[in-house]
Amino acid sequence: MQTHEARLAALREELKRRELDGFVVPISDEHMSEYVGEYAQRLAWLTGFGGSAGTAVVMLDRAAMFVDGRYTLQVRDQVDGRLWDYESIPQTSPVDWLGEHAAKGARIGFDPWLHSPGWAKAAEKALAANGATLVAVESNPVDAVWQDRPAASAAAARPHDEALAGRSSADKRGVIADWLKAKGYDATVITALDSVAWLFNIRGSDVSRTPVALSFAVVLADGTADLFIAPEKVTPELSAHLGNAVTVRDRAAFEDALATMNGQTVAVDPDRAVAAIFRALEDAGATVVEERDPVVLPKAIKTEAEQAGHRAAQARDGAAVAKFLNWIASEAPSGRVSEMEASDRLEAFRAESDRLTDLSFDTISGGGPNGAVVHYRVSEETNRQLEPNSVYLVDSGGQYADGTTDITRTVWVGPDAPPAEVKDRFTRVLKGHIALAMAVFPKGTVGSQLDTLARQFLWAAGLDYAHGTGHGVGSYLSVHEGPQNIGKGGRPKEQELLPGMILSNEPGYYKTGEYGIRIENLVLVETREIAGAEHEMMGFETLTFAPIDRNLVQTALLTGAEREWLNAYHAKVRAIVGPQLTGAPLAWLEEQCAPLRA
Amino acid sequence: MQTHEARLAALREELKRRELDGFVVPISDEHMSEYVGEYAQRLAWLTGFGGSAGTAVVMLDRAAMFVDGRYTLQVRDQVDGRLWDYESIPQTSPVDWLGEHAAKGARIGFDPWLHSPGWAKAAEKALAANGATLVAVESNPVDAVWQDRPAASAAAARPHDEALAGRSSADKRGVIADWLKAKGYDATVITALDSVAWLFNIRGSDVSRTPVALSFAVVLADGTADLFIAPEKVTPELSAHLGNAVTVRDRAAFEDALATMNGQTVAVDPDRAVAAIFRALEDAGATVVEERDPVVLPKAIKTEAEQAGHRAAQARDGAAVAKFLNWIASEAPSGRVSEMEASDRLEAFRAESDRLTDLSFDTISGGGPNGAVVHYRVSEETNRQLEPNSVYLVDSGGQYADGTTDITRTVWVGPDAPPAEVKDRFTRVLKGHIALAMAVFPKGTVGSQLDTLARQFLWAAGLDYAHGTGHGVGSYLSVHEGPQNIGKGGRPKEQELLPGMILSNEPGYYKTGEYGIRIENLVLVETREIAGAEHEMMGFETLTFAPIDRNLVQTALLTGAEREWLNAYHAKVRAIVGPQLTGAPLAWLEEQCAPLRA
Repeated sequence: MQTHEARLAALREELKRRELDGFVVPISDEHMSEYVGEYAQRLAWLTGFGGSAGTAVVMLDRAAMFVDGRYTLQVRDQVDGRLWDYESIPQTSPVDWLGEHAAKGARIGFDPWLHSPGWAKAAEKALAANGATLVAVESNPVDAVWQDRPAASAAAARPHDEALAGRSSADKRGVIADWLKAKGYDATVITALDSVAWLFNIRGSDVSRTPVALSFAVVLADGTADLFIAPEKVTPELSAHLGNAVTVRDRAAFEDALATMNGQTVAVDPDRAVAAIFRALEDAGATVVEERDPVVLPKAIKTEAEQAGHRAAQARDGAAVAKFLNWIASEAPSGRVSEMEASDRLEAFRAESDRLTDLSFDTISGGGPNGAVVHYRVSEETNRQLEPNSVYLVDSGGQYADGTTDITRTVWVGPDAPPAEVKDRFTRVLKGHIALAMAVFPKGTVGSQLDTLARQFLWAAGLDYAHGTGHGVGSYLSVHEGPQNIGKGGRPKEQELLPGMILSNEPGYYKTGEYGIRIENLVLVETREIAGAEHEMMGFETLTFAPIDRNLVQTALLTGAEREWLNAYHAKVRAIVGPQLTGAPLAWLEEQCAPLRA
Repeated sequence: MQTHEARLAALREELKRRELDGFVVPISDEHMSEYVGEYAQRLAWLTGFGGSAGTAVVMLDRAAMFVDGRYTLQVRDQVDGRLWDYESIPQTSPVDWLGEHAAKGARIGFDPWLHSPGWAKAAEKALAANGATLVAVESNPVDAVWQDRPAASAAAARPHDEALAGRSSADKRGVIADWLKAKGYDATVITALDSVAWLFNIRGSDVSRTPVALSFAVVLADGTADLFIAPEKVTPELSAHLGNAVTVRDRAAFEDALATMNGQTVAVDPDRAVAAIFRALEDAGATVVEERDPVVLPKAIKTEAEQAGHRAAQARDGAAVAKFLNWIASEAPSGRVSEMEASDRLEAFRAESDRLTDLSFDTISGGGPNGAVVHYRVSEETNRQLEPNSVYLVDSGGQYADGTTDITRTVWVGPDAPPAEVKDRFTRVLKGHIALAMAVFPKGTVGSQLDTLARQFLWAAGLDYAHGTGHGVGSYLSVHEGPQNIGKGGRPKEQELLPGMILSNEPGYYKTGEYGIRIENLVLVETREIAGAEHEMMGFETLTFAPIDRNLVQTALLTGAEREWLNAYHAKVRAIVGPQLTGAPLAWLEEQCAPLRA
């Protein structure tokens, strides 16, 4: 295998051949995906970096790796400091760094299929200030020197059952067509993989953890569409499913197709479409209008069928989690269970269902101090035994055809009773979780108006957590989806919460070097009928069902209403999960779900 | 007296003389003040409208009055519908209306000393779309036809005791000078009357309810300043107070002074300075930079002396309010007290203190359905008797040299017990008030993150209130000041709450046609020491002390912590206000402040 030093040298030779003085290597694909396929893991190939976010800039005489605070340690482990400078985001961005280090007259390359137009504009400006130029390459120079680069996945795409989607693709395209007509646009380019999947009711296996197929779409104001997808992915069944109003074209023909849109007014999302798409349309003489992908909002509002499917998936998933938690309760106090073994065991319990198609993300299985690393992902190097009398945090989810799950539980690994501090922190997190779960709010409310409900009991003790409280979740799609979220706010145009949206409810507390706590259920926004109400009101239906560790609850800190919520929740866990268990796991579940007394 | 019809006709003749086809008449002054002096009440003179917000547009053949929802009824009572069309803001803005009604080639006048540059730009654009022109007049045509127009107030300006301000004017100017130097600006123009008053430690009597003097200032990067103020306002005492570093110049010379700033870089606040100031500087060849008035933030952060003064003023004000509430409790159930009489009596109780210089705003004294009108201001026409067995809401405040107060109390006018619904609503408002009063939050928190704490118990019953929860309050200055506030959010750059800021805490509930409830205390942002805290935390010190009507509290709806808060609050009311009372009011206060039992 080529060393990373040799790879970097080969890339520099390639840059010289192309008369480039530098090149930018992000973790990105042509769809600006959160998770990218193996074929697009250029940064990992070039540097050895295994994190999910980062960028490299290679100049002929120096090279720098840019990562955020999550990866400060990891980058030093994985990326050779003799070849690479380490830079911290957001203190130094690649754009700032380029502005500082590119010499007058330098030509810095970027792949316009991997960057947003906003990024390209900012980089161009920063370089211009120095008399340097940003150059869009025709093909990626990393690919030219990457021996044995994996091909893009050739997995077949498949129809997504309309009974699960609750809405036909024709109907969905009609919604987009109506929007185009109302806005006076001719067409829109859909680039986000989950948007394409939702719009055509198709799913795929091209990206790890998200059941999507690599494809682009152009939707016209008459409701017809072109779907750009590799021909080998298109089965006769898929063709039949797509019907006559959808023209299936080769994904390789996408750029040429954009070049024919002369004279048309085309809506494109600058946060989801890469710079190359804007350039191709502008070069073709199309009028490009920046708009949010029109699929994003309707996709977030789940149909009745999606809601019902989600409940079924959750019941199934809850049984797997309950079996796992019972297994942890009986095995971990001996000190013989490792984080990795636990993670594997949890996956095995989920896989007992033949409806599981994948996990919805890499399981976070963190014992003791590893639980305090918010984006922890266990590896051979970090793998810890779960120690007796420690805190264990597990954040995981499954992809089922009827729904995507995401649940975090934090448990005390006995055999002794947990210390008062851990119980205090856990109970404050739980009180926040319950306050959000019980919230009632008027139409028009945005997530940041509810965020404080989840933090208030930690704040009262001078504590907080450095992440959002809730993210949107897809229906057999991405486990992270917008536009809804629950966080501290500060965004210019926050999305109001609407009935049918699914969000996570996941406050936490992290004590660096000691332990992490998070309690996460998914919730569904629902309308609330209240006698005498003067406004249209909403609330949350909790969708996730698995025991919350009663050993960690400081009952005296709960109000009567909070205790009642927890007891009612556990009664529901018992009713939904219990019938799927037998023997010891069932006996354990019944114990866990017994009412807590004041 | 000239009729309003004759006034409108005279204005139209004047417009014709000036070859104008229309003219815009806002309620505004040269300082964009919230309250404007009599000399600037052009809209009231022209139309008879007595509200605090509205605009008229006079064309040669038609005229329209624009008011928001608060004044829909009032404008029809006060403004002659045969002369004026009624238009509703925000459905139709004057700018929109001009864009629609100004004919091609029309010349529409505006007084650039009464509008923001943003307004002028928007109006210009709307008119240009029609081929019409916006014309800045050299002098206001309303003034030309306004017989017996009051002169601007000639009241003397006076030094504000540095012991109360807690900071010298030289020190304050130094802060502004440092800011100018750091930004690389030469000067800033300060136009807001309360900013000028704060900066020079001066007060005046030119505007009702706000102790400010009509003046402008130009502050230079070396800490010296020009203060533009009418010479008759400047006493020898004031001159001595201002010192050598401040050049006192005639307010009439302000525009000419701007014309000499050629080549200088000058910071001006586009939300607080009128269009004429921008034009004068640009015409002079100055470089104008838009910045928020640099006085706004330091003014909001009260010094120790201001905080101490505020507490003293509140103690005094609380005694007046307690005497008044005792008087209401004994007199109103008979049905012989009117809203106006109550308002006068409250003012008389406040005036028993020789430290009172003015009220801080016109008292809102609303019985029954009038209490549900959020911006109600009693008049001869609307004056109601307080009916036995009704709800009475009173929102009032005083200007004392050591502090500005603002308090709302809602009481049940007996003799019978209040209905369950009113108690339920009052208790929900109270629970929200307490939740905000008890809030603890980390540094960096903005008001909109706390707003929901005050609304949550109303939301749970499907109820809400259509106003913000808290506004900033000045120190012997404006009762409404920014930049801090507590509301539903959605503003692009919200101000974080900082220790020393004073805000109101005033949730409410309004049942149209029946009654209004509001409970308002002022609170001070303070740092909070918490054992084991991992973040810099803050909370509120409640500053206002007067009984909260226990007859309206549904004790069973309070948690233990809420009841404890209320009992501790009443104990403090007893301790602070009690020593200032004797006889029946004292006995009544003691009864009101006795602990509530579960």
